[in-house]
Amino acid sequence: MTQHPDHPHHPEKPSLALLGLGAMGSALARTWLAAGHPLTVWNRSPARAAALAAEGARVAGSAAEALAANSLVIACLLDDDSVGEALAGTDLDGKDLVNLTTSTPAQARARAAWARERGGRYLDGTIMAVPPMIGVPEAGGYVFYSGSPELFERHRETLAVPAGTTYVGEDAGFAALHDVALLSAMYGMFAGAAHAFALIRNEDIDPASLATLLADWLVAMAPSVHRTADHLKSGDYTKGVVSNLGMQVAGTPTFLDTAEQQGVSPELLVPYFALMRRRLDEGGGDEDLTGVVDLLAR
Amino acid sequence: MTQHPDHPHHPEKPSLALLGLGAMGSALARTWLAAGHPLTVWNRSPARAAALAAEGARVAGSAAEALAANSLVIACLLDDDSVGEALAGTDLDGKDLVNLTTSTPAQARARAAWARERGGRYLDGTIMAVPPMIGVPEAGGYVFYSGSPELFERHRETLAVPAGTTYVGEDAGFAALHDVALLSAMYGMFAGAAHAFALIRNEDIDPASLATLLADWLVAMAPSVHRTADHLKSGDYTKGVVSNLGMQVAGTPTFLDTAEQQGVSPELLVPYFALMRRRLDEGGGDEDLTGVVDLLAR
Repeated sequence: MTQHPDHPHHPEKPSLALLGLGAMGSALARTWLAAGHPLTVWNRSPARAAALAAEGARVAGSAAEALAANSLVIACLLDDDSVGEALAGTDLDGKDLVNLTTSTPAQARARAAWARERGGRYLDGTIMAVPPMIGVPEAGGYVFYSGSPELFERHRETLAVPAGTTYVGEDAGFAALHDVALLSAMYGMFAGAAHAFALIRNEDIDPASLATLLADWLVAMAPSVHRTADHLKSGDYTKGVVSNLGMQVAGTPTFLDTAEQQGVSPELLVPYFALMRRRLDEGGGDEDLTGVVDLLAR
Repeated sequence: MTQHPDHPHHPEKPSLALLGLGAMGSALARTWLAAGHPLTVWNRSPARAAALAAEGARVAGSAAEALAANSLVIACLLDDDSVGEALAGTDLDGKDLVNLTTSTPAQARARAAWARERGGRYLDGTIMAVPPMIGVPEAGGYVFYSGSPELFERHRETLAVPAGTTYVGEDAGFAALHDVALLSAMYGMFAGAAHAFALIRNEDIDPASLATLLADWLVAMAPSVHRTADHLKSGDYTKGVVSNLGMQVAGTPTFLDTAEQQGVSPELLVPYFALMRRRLDEGGGDEDLTGVVDLLAR
């Protein structure tokens, strides 16, 4: 291991080890190096580690070597299996493992138990950003953390270097659950937007003009999730309803007819409309759309 | 017809007729009355008209009577058939008909031709607001207009009284098309949000906390529609791609596994994921999600 003259170690900045130097891991590494944290990196294929060595990182020959010199260990690997493989046989006693690897809630919970069995503390993290947003606070990226509250508090400042931090609970699966929830909602929005663009695809309408209207409209409508939350908390799905489910279901033929007239497959709208109809048939005509949540959650 | 003392007619404000006094029509009527426009109203069932008479509206006994005294006629009826029925046999010669009734683009185009055959000018409008937003500029509601540009220019100020105006082209169907496009995208977003809430339904997570995160996330992601528009215009779907389709498809099992673990039906996500996979199989791995638009628009 060598020390890079451009990044003298700041004795006051905690050292850490980072396992995994994909696009995200490399972006994380650079922000910690730039902030003056002594950083040990390990990657399965060594080429990416060499690039970071030139920027001041210490390069470990194995995950075990990276762990040996640091109590804080960040994993940002391909998937949960890669975490198990990289750390197989290593000693986690007294280590603080922060796992930023994409996982399901169940994988995160199992990995937390696995780390605790080996004497380690465990914090799971899910990154709500793409690599270009790392180290760019104004880009608004952040990381959900869940698991050991002590670990989170102890390393809060270090963890806040690459992106904002949002702690969502002691259940190690909650970071993954929040990540999946937000991204699922985003895919729904993207599906709706794809349908919208498809409707005008063969018309003399500038997609850029539609995009401006669409972005403004989605931004204006997004806060309606607060009413959904109020409904779910109170159990009263009729509170504050302006456009009720009966009226909305009555309007769905206009959407389907328009899709047909424009030669657009309705496959992305039909499943939601079907759930709206089911809720209406079950007596939800005075509600708005909250009841669909209960039809999904068995 | 009687004149209400609280609303003396301002000679400088154009008079108009409004057909249809449902929740939306009544909200529109009140803003024109409040702004001092002489207003004649007609509604199939007379009770709602009586309420507005007390606020200064002239009440016509038939649609034909309402038309007779005004060159600007606004229709805000239940559906396109109701417009045909209300105006059957009336003389549209020299009339400016603005139709705010919910229609498909094809219905709007047919109604425009129908009005022109009867000597009238035609403007179609679709209201991007719920009744409580009418007459409340800060609520951000607006109306898409398409059809006769002369009619729109002549009555622009009058039309701007209840809500903002956005003219989207001479094709009378374009207002309806824009309306359906934006609302379709909104339903996609609501579908995604319903899935997100369903994921945490049985967990110890406050729906209000999720709503705050969700609203912020959706607002942050909505502007990505601008990149979609750029792609559609240039035909290059790989430009500026950060998270490519190959990576995103590789991530979909995490979403489906999480849904299964949480006991949530994936029915609202699966159709979009299937289209992502199809586009990937067709060679779109270096694109992001724009190609889905082309799979929808046959």
